[in-house]
Formats: sequence, structure tokens, C-alpha cells
Amino acid sequence: MNTAAIYHRPESEFAYLYDQEVLHLRLRTAKSDISQVQLIWGDPYLVEKKKREKPIAMTKGLSSDLHDYWFASVKAPFKRLSYAFALTGKDQLRAFYGDQGLFPLTKDVMETSNFYFRFPYFHEADRFKAPTWVKETVWYQIFPERFANGDQANDPEGTLTWGSKTPDRQDYFGGDLQGVIDHLDYLVDLGINGIYFCPIFKAYSNHKYDTIDYRKIDPDFGDEKVFKKLVDECHKRGIKVMLDAVFNHMGDQSPQWQDVLAKGENSKYADWFHINEFPATYKASDDFEEAYDITYDTFAFTPHMPKLNTTNPEVQEYLLATAKYWIETFDIDAWRLDVANEVDHAFWKKFRQVCDETKKDFYILGEIWHSAQKWLEGDEFHGVMNYAYTDAIMGYFVKEQLSLEAMISAMNQQLMLYRDQTNQVQFNVLDSHDTPRLLTEAKEDKDLMKQVMAFTYLQPGVPCLYYGDEIGLSGGADPECRKCMIWDEKRQDQELLQFVKQLIALRKNWQKIVSQGTIHWCEINEQNGLLILERKLSGKTLRAIFNTGEQKITLEERGEVIFTNLTEQTEQKTVIQEKGFLIETL
Amino acid sequence: MNTAAIYHRPESEFAYLYDQEVLHLRLRTAKSDISQVQLIWGDPYLVEKKKREKPIAMTKGLSSDLHDYWFASVKAPFKRLSYAFALTGKDQLRAFYGDQGLFPLTKDVMETSNFYFRFPYFHEADRFKAPTWVKETVWYQIFPERFANGDQANDPEGTLTWGSKTPDRQDYFGGDLQGVIDHLDYLVDLGINGIYFCPIFKAYSNHKYDTIDYRKIDPDFGDEKVFKKLVDECHKRGIKVMLDAVFNHMGDQSPQWQDVLAKGENSKYADWFHINEFPATYKASDDFEEAYDITYDTFAFTPHMPKLNTTNPEVQEYLLATAKYWIETFDIDAWRLDVANEVDHAFWKKFRQVCDETKKDFYILGEIWHSAQKWLEGDEFHGVMNYAYTDAIMGYFVKEQLSLEAMISAMNQQLMLYRDQTNQVQFNVLDSHDTPRLLTEAKEDKDLMKQVMAFTYLQPGVPCLYYGDEIGLSGGADPECRKCMIWDEKRQDQELLQFVKQLIALRKNWQKIVSQGTIHWCEINEQNGLLILERKLSGKTLRAIFNTGEQKITLEERGEVIFTNLTEQTEQKTVIQEKGFLIETL
Repeated sequence: MNTAAIYHRPESEFAYLYDQEVLHLRLRTAKSDISQVQLIWGDPYLVEKKKREKPIAMTKGLSSDLHDYWFASVKAPFKRLSYAFALTGKDQLRAFYGDQGLFPLTKDVMETSNFYFRFPYFHEADRFKAPTWVKETVWYQIFPERFANGDQANDPEGTLTWGSKTPDRQDYFGGDLQGVIDHLDYLVDLGINGIYFCPIFKAYSNHKYDTIDYRKIDPDFGDEKVFKKLVDECHKRGIKVMLDAVFNHMGDQSPQWQDVLAKGENSKYADWFHINEFPATYKASDDFEEAYDITYDTFAFTPHMPKLNTTNPEVQEYLLATAKYWIETFDIDAWRLDVANEVDHAFWKKFRQVCDETKKDFYILGEIWHSAQKWLEGDEFHGVMNYAYTDAIMGYFVKEQLSLEAMISAMNQQLMLYRDQTNQVQFNVLDSHDTPRLLTEAKEDKDLMKQVMAFTYLQPGVPCLYYGDEIGLSGGADPECRKCMIWDEKRQDQELLQFVKQLIALRKNWQKIVSQGTIHWCEINEQNGLLILERKLSGKTLRAIFNTGEQKITLEERGEVIFTNLTEQTEQKTVIQEKGFLIETL
Repeated sequence: MNTAAIYHRPESEFAYLYDQEVLHLRLRTAKSDISQVQLIWGDPYLVEKKKREKPIAMTKGLSSDLHDYWFASVKAPFKRLSYAFALTGKDQLRAFYGDQGLFPLTKDVMETSNFYFRFPYFHEADRFKAPTWVKETVWYQIFPERFANGDQANDPEGTLTWGSKTPDRQDYFGGDLQGVIDHLDYLVDLGINGIYFCPIFKAYSNHKYDTIDYRKIDPDFGDEKVFKKLVDECHKRGIKVMLDAVFNHMGDQSPQWQDVLAKGENSKYADWFHINEFPATYKASDDFEEAYDITYDTFAFTPHMPKLNTTNPEVQEYLLATAKYWIETFDIDAWRLDVANEVDHAFWKKFRQVCDETKKDFYILGEIWHSAQKWLEGDEFHGVMNYAYTDAIMGYFVKEQLSLEAMISAMNQQLMLYRDQTNQVQFNVLDSHDTPRLLTEAKEDKDLMKQVMAFTYLQPGVPCLYYGDEIGLSGGADPECRKCMIWDEKRQDQELLQFVKQLIALRKNWQKIVSQGTIHWCEINEQNGLLILERKLSGKTLRAIFNTGEQKITLEERGEVIFTNLTEQTEQKTVIQEKGFLIETL
């Protein structure tokens, strides 16, 4: 038995309340090393008296390249739990694993109550909870400058003709909020029911990530009145609205930073930022190396984005009141937090409280690219931009950087970083304003694009469609991926659009099983590329079969087909072409 | 290489700010499996550009039976860090370990920035911080009913003659707060500089863990005036005062519970408790089994201690105002929280905020017997009753349940559960009102008692002396361990008292190295029982040699001896008798 590989962590993603009464327990062991795990458990004060409940056989769940994860759910009669794991190795050795480590599985050990892990009391207050509506959502990401120009009166100087060229960094095409309102019925028809807006507050650039005023709609996009109308019109159509808050840093054109530049240490905003030495200066240079020659902390090494000091009470008050203002006055449903990982946890905990107090069922999404357990314990964010998960998917399906096994391993490993209810509200993007477009990454192969989208829409996290992907918009890395949306139906890929509509409809119809169902990788065939995923919930099964190889695959039996691409059916047999897939219910 | 055993967790006790600028990093590997670990690191935005800093060789620190722990400290030029581990196995294999798992150590892997762990920004606000005074403290635990009777006017009815018998559960002997004031100079002479008082608020029993009124000093012990005097007199003498708050449950004699009994669902306190079914009843029985027949949640299965609902805003307000009241009005320095693990984290975070806001450098100690990472992340408690640590010490030295190796393994494992600065303020008890007395556990063997105390006082946590241990008070499990203090000097063990005074003085003199110094187990000799511990800080070494075997041990060389028991010195040699020890500086 590989005893050193065994791991469990109390009060974490390894031991958490799933719902008010049900505790989920996980155990990590070395891959293919353990044949059986029993959960030994009881009320702590009864375990002290050597009285335990009937052991529960743990099921082997997801696996990564190095580990197996075991799972059990348990209810406790008195809302308290002492628990430990009785392991049987493939070598027939038996061990007891608990709060003080590993021991031989003897009666004495099993009767030593302080050797048990504890979940001291089932506190609903401490449970990770997320709003139900999030699971039911398919998001649509809008980069406002490029979605639609609904009001030419607010076009900035030098606005280019819509779609007249591939965008450069400084280009303006006149997209605005009225443009979004004008096309809401298109979005309803598409089937999405949540919009994630890139920043819309007054800022210097076309991307608006360098905020000048957090309380103002950028005049290029409209004003508060049109934004209020936008939210109302969205809500009328059952669409949730998520705004992008850039609280890690401010734009250097903001009055606060300008005051610091003018008055130095005497500025009343001197402590709003992280200034290591006055005056706040940087050496202007295009050479990245020289960007270090800067006397204040910034986002990355961008001197135009000075980092905010979120421990300063005035800054806190300003940002928290801002968060509250947009919720209270405009009734937005969610905040997406830019560069969320670089802001302190203490601030985010306050932020969470303000949001919770201001609106019931509010959703908070953090931009974090790396593993994010610390932000997802229930008192900061509900989900993060799930790049590590979707990167694995892209890495296999599209970029050919990963083997099939490696993709599954990476996905499972990511799922095991978080509680099940967290995984259900993670934000799964295949592309965004920060990456090349999916169609471009797929080298314009629409069938591949369809396949990877179908696969992603069957994952527990919530999918987000980047504007225009559905009608065949292409583009490489920023700024190319920020092309103007095409509204001329003849120039839209109608066939792709129909596919995306159907996929969104499928996701919404089968949302419950896709969000909450258990995950079973029934076939991971590196040779012929056959990948079969089953999702199971309450006796129902959704089965998806992907042909990721280079030959046709013929399957004998099947359930009721509900969605498919590149398949043929002949006399009880189904042939799936390469890049094809089939989704069925059993 | 045992790849499956490798573990690191970002933003946890494996990666934390030690001081404002210094990050501590730990890595767990299988025992004796890895020969070398290099920390690969750099600024995240430079690592993206394939620019890294010079690698740092990690040092192999503490080990448990299954694991080695590797350590490095690092400063980051821009307060941000990407980091990963380059491991070399004893089998010469080399691996890269980062945020997405284990990979072969190749240039490509090392240049993939999202494979790195992140510590996104060095936030002082999120750092685990504890008041400096705690490290400098030697605590003394007083069970007020049994320490000294200073005011016979407040003796409860039926008070027995002081020390006239071994106590039974319901006995009263008249101990009170005036008694403590009367003997403060004794405590100063002893050298302790912190008193942990068992509960002193109005309650039903002699132990006062069944609170009736959290805002009243129990009349058996005195009143608010005498308590104010007590705190002031302590502070005059440089002694800190810690009170015991029993916030998990209330006594059933409290007006709140009595109101619930009288009015049921209509009581305004109905939601103050966890009542599963009205009326709140239990089946009176001495049979433990039948105690389950109860309609409300309690502490353990004690119907007289109904559990408080700490999510009820009124309960929160009441308890938080109580916490504040005793700090603000009486200037206490610390709260010890009874059954702290069974109260929700959300409540404790609020509690921490109230304490921090009310008094600078306030200390919070939770009663948690099991592993307690979740409570010790910096926003709840500073320390916990460190039973798991001292149990290991008792298990080897006194109870003979553990081998020497097993004790060291268990201690190291406990130390690796928490940040270094947490370990420095943990609360180390060898006995208490809840356990048999140390002298009794040691079968009245004073030399053994001295040896285990010396060993414990050299550990990084803060020692607490249980009243009377220093003068030879004995007693088995509760209620025997709660005997009356002996004040007749002739009946006190003066020799033991002198020893304890010297040990306390040593601990205070060498506090810095004992708190903060690195730990080196230089000799762990299971055969002859020789145990050598070195503590090192800033070039200084404190070395302690324990003979835990059954033969004399003769040592050749030595440094400057500063404390010793059962040793003889002859011509450059030192003979340590069994149960002897020697502490020296190098």
C-alpha cells in the first residue's frame, strides 16, 4: 500500500456539507493502489464510548494520472461526525487513516476516539451555497465596443465603419448599450439567459479595463438611463446581467491617480495606491525590462494601471459602495471580478457580505486562472473563470497538446479541487476577449468546433458563449478576437447558428443532470479516439459518445438519441464519423 | 520516485506569509524518497515571459513516519510569486511539480507559466498575525473554586473546609477571586505571567461551564468590583488575564432556557437554541443510551447544556456584546473559547473582528482537540488547546504508549499542520481540569515529571501550568484533579516548586529561540533512549539532551550548561542519569 500518498483534509473540498443534512467525504489514494475503502463513523460522543454506526463502503470516483478519489455521502443523526477510513490495499494490507495519520487497522486503533477526523457540527451557515439560477444559465459574453452600435450619437471621435477592418488596439467601432438592447430578441432566440458584459464604466481605452470612474457608464456606451433600460429589458426576457468590476487597479487617467501625480505624498489619495517611493514615476519605454523602473505597484508591469490599496478604509468604502450602487440602483445579478486573485481575501469577504445583504441570490465570479480553493470556501466567490478546466479540453480536442488520458486526468484533478456544488457554478469558457476565437483555434474546422462545444456543454460548470462564435466569427489573439459582430444574416453562418441554438436548448433541457449528475468516463480509448461520458442522476443517464479519432466508429446498441452531429444510423447500428458525436438518454 | 505522495497546497500552511515580506513554502514528499528539491520561482508576469529568478535549494525540515517536509523562504521583488518545485528522487528521476500536477522536468514544462503555483500578491491584511506578548507568556490555569478562598462571606451554602477531602462532583470549597488577588505575589514569584481562568460567570455548578448569565461574575466568586481589582492587580504585575467563554451552549438554569421551557414555541428565545421539536424535553435517565431521547441539540448528550443557535442575530448580538463588555470594561487580554469547534466559523469570524476592534493585541484561544487548520487561517483564532501535540509527549514520556520515533513523528506532523507563527502561540498543556494531574499520570515520579516538563517548555508553543502542579498537587480524572490548592508551605513540595520556578525562568530567558528557532532532532535513539533536541535562531543554539532510557548516558563534549536535572560532571564528561536532562547553549 502506498501509505504516503493517502490524503484527506478536514473542512475542505475533502469534507463539506453538500446540502443542509448531507456531508460529502472524499479521500485521495495512489492510483490503482487500493481495492476498498470503508468509512468508519459515528457521533463523536458515542465514538468516545466505542459505539459506531454501520460502516459505509466508499465508491471509487474520479481518477487522475496519479490518484484515485473515493467518495461517500453521510447523514449524521446528531449533526456531528467523527469519521475515519479503513483501507484495504491491492496488496491485502489493511490500514486505518484518521486525524493523527495512518495506523494498522486494529480494534484498539478503531476505538481510539481522538484518532478520528471530526466534522464537529453541521452548520448551514458555513456551507458553500450558490444561487440556483446560475446552474440554469447559459452565459453570453459581450465586449460592448464590438457587439452593436445602437446609437451613433455617442460614437467617439474617429469611430470606424462597423466591421470595416480587423481591429487594432486603439480602434473604435461605436458599439454601445443601445446596440445590445436592439438585439436582445436575437439573444432570446439564441437561447442564452445570462449576459456577461466586459467593463462598461467610464475608462480610457476601448476595452475599459482602465477605469476612470466606477460610478459612471462610459459615455461611448451610453448613460445610466440606457443601462437601466438594458437591465430591465434583459430581466423581462429572463436574462441575468453580470458586470465586470476592475477593483485590483484603477486607470491612470482617474482623478484619484491624477491627484497623486500632482500632489505626491500630500494627495488625499496618496494611500489609495501602493506607492513604494514618492514621487510616483515610471520610465517611459517600450522595453519590457525597463518597465521595472517604477515606484508604485501596478497590474502586471503596466504603469497605466496603478494597483489599488484595498486595505485603505476609504478605498474599501468607495469600492463596496460601488458594488452596492450597481446592484441596488440597477438590479444587476452578478459581478465578475477582474484580476481577483491579486486583491486581498479580507476585502473579498467584505465584498461578499455587501452583495449578499444587497440582493438575494447574487452571484460572484472571480477571474482566477490557477487553482482557487481559498477563494471558494463559501465566503468569497461562487465560481472562478475555469480556464484550467477548459484549457484541458482545448488541449486535447483542439490544440493537440494533450493525450486523451491526460485531458481526463487534468479535468478530474480540477473537479477534485472544489466542492461538488462549486463545480456546478464554475464558469466554463472556450474562448474570450483574452484568447483567440474557438473557430480560429480549430483552424476553421466547424465540426471540431461543434464537437468541443458539445463536450463542454455536458460538463458540470456553466458554459459561456463568446459573442459571435455562434455565427462563425473568427480571430486570433487580442485584438483580433474582438472583431465587430456580424448582423447581416447573409454573412452569418446560419448552419452553425442552428447548431448552437440546439446545443443551448439541450443544455437547458438537461441542466439538472448536467449540473448535478455524477460523472462516469465509460470509455477513454487512446487508440481509436472513442470517448464515452455518462452523467447520472436519480436513475437517469445521459450518455455522450465522441469520436475524436481518425476513423469511423460503429456502435451496436443505443438509447434514445437527443442530439448528434456527423452520425448515420443503419439497422440498429450507429456510425459516428470522425469529429462526430451522439448524445442519448438511457 | 513516489510521485503520488507529493503534496503542496497554495494559500495554506504550505504557502503563507511569515512576515510582511517573507513567504514560507513547504512541500511534502514520501519519507526518504527525494534527495533534492529546488524552488523555481519568479514574478508571475516575468515567468510568462520565460524569465525566472535563481532557483533556491529547499532544506529538508521535519519528518513524520511517512513524510519528509521541505522548506524554503523567499522574498519577491514585486510582492507576487509564481513558483514550482523541481524534485530529484533518490532514484535520480527528476520531476516538475506545480499547480497542474507532476510533469517530467523539461525546459518546455518549466516555461509553461500556468503550470506554476501562484501566491498572487503579498497581502499583509491576509497574513496570520498573533500578539507578540503571547510568545513571551507562561500561563497558569486556575480553577477558581479550588485555588484560594479569600472571602468567606461569599461561600456558598454547604461549603466544605478547605482541602478537607478529595472533591466529589458537587462539592464546594469556597474558592473565589479575592483568593486569587491574595496570592498574586506567589504567582509573580513563581514567574508566570498569564492566568487562564476557568469560567467565572454566574452558573449553576462548581465548574461554571453551564452559564446562567454571561454578564455577571458568579456570586460564589465575588462581583464585578473584585474582578476589576483582580485584572488591575494582575496588570500591575505584568500578568495577562484570559477568561473562559462558553458560547457553544448555555446552562439550562438560564432565564432564556427557562423561558423556552415555560412558553415553548412562543418563547421569544425559541430560536436561540436548536430545538428540533417542541416542547423541548428529554427523558431523565442515568442510562447514556436513553439520553438520545431528547428534542433539542445539546453539548454532547448533556440535557442541561442546550446548544446555542449562533446564527440567530439576537444570540450573536448578545454574545458579541458580551465578548466586548469584558474586554472594554475590565480590560481582559484574551478569551479562551470552550467547545469552539462546534460553533460555526461565520460566528467566530465576527467574534474575531469584535475582539480586534475592541483591544489591540488581543489573543483568542479555541478549545479544539483535533486538527484545526480551518480555525487558524488568520481570521478566527490565534491558537488552540494543543492536546494532539502534548498527547504525543505524554504518550512517550509518561504513558509509555508510543515509541520515541512515534512521538517525534506525531509532534512533527502536528507542527506541519500549522504556519510557523501559529505554532509559536499554540497552548501546550500537560494536564488540566479535564485530565488527570501530571504527577499522578507519572505515578508520582517527580523526576519523570521534571523531565517531561523541561521537554515541553522547550517546544515552540506556549506552556500552561495547571494550578498546584508546581507544589506537588496530585489527582486522577475529574473531579480528583480539582483538589484544593495547598497553601501551607510545609505541605508544599518546595523542591519541586524551586525546579518549576527555574524552568519558567529559563523559558522566559530563552523565549525567542524556543518560540522561533528551527527544530532539529539531532538524536532519536530508540535503543538507549537518548533524545537530543536543538533549537537554532540567528546563529545561536539551545541544545537539550534527555535520557529517557534505563541506563546512565555519558557524553563527551558539551556547551555551557544552563539547566539540568540528575546529571553529574566529571573531567569533561557529563553523566546523565535515567530521567535526567541537560540544557546547554552552543
